[in-house]
Amino acid sequence: MGAPAAIDLRAKLARVAVPWTPRVVAELNDYQVKVVKLAGDFVWHRHDDTDELFIVLHGEMEVGFRDRDVTVREGEMIVVPRGVEHITRAHAECHALIIEPRGVANTGDAGGALTAAQDAWI
Amino acid sequence: MGAPAAIDLRAKLARVAVPWTPRVVAELNDYQVKVVKLAGDFVWHRHDDTDELFIVLHGEMEVGFRDRDVTVREGEMIVVPRGVEHITRAHAECHALIIEPRGVANTGDAGGALTAAQDAWI
Repeated sequence: MGAPAAIDLRAKLARVAVPWTPRVVAELNDYQVKVVKLAGDFVWHRHDDTDELFIVLHGEMEVGFRDRDVTVREGEMIVVPRGVEHITRAHAECHALIIEPRGVANTGDAGGALTAAQDAWI
Repeated sequence: MGAPAAIDLRAKLARVAVPWTPRVVAELNDYQVKVVKLAGDFVWHRHDDTDELFIVLHGEMEVGFRDRDVTVREGEMIVVPRGVEHITRAHAECHALIIEPRGVANTGDAGGALTAAQDAWI
């Protein structure tokens, strides 16, 4: 197998047009690395089968939990534990990485209009 | 379960004294997120059972493969595929995240003096 390429996350994000549409940039075993733009409020949901990692690359996001809100700034990350209800929000556009197993729906148990296409690469 | 905290990667890295000693900052299911400082040359090795993700947070690193070298700059990432021999290098100190399953030795099949403690949190 030949050498893999470096992946420029800023360049990938520049090609994402629509907030709340995670786009896969790489796979790590059966996990996917996705870039996403956040703007406004997402929806309350949970993922019963997996934790979910967010790394903020630009701006800041808020993860709302039922007991409190957590701000995650550029250069920070957070792991949302499986089964825990949460909502992501961004007051100004925020760019993040999401890392989670292949096949996780962005809206978890909630579904609805913001449910993004699975396995959409950029 | 209460809300998890945000993790400041720069603050974590400020507490890492020694290059080539990955320190765990979070777990994502059975995966670990580690911060590491790179300086100089590591050792040629491979991981037969897993891919390995590097995300460069500061500076730049080089991943040497048998067919070519790949430079990974701040804001870029690379997935080293399982079974592929590689060596990491940094001409100036570089800070990176490593994400891989729990229990992966940093020196893979090679072992030796640079083998770091497992499951060392910071």
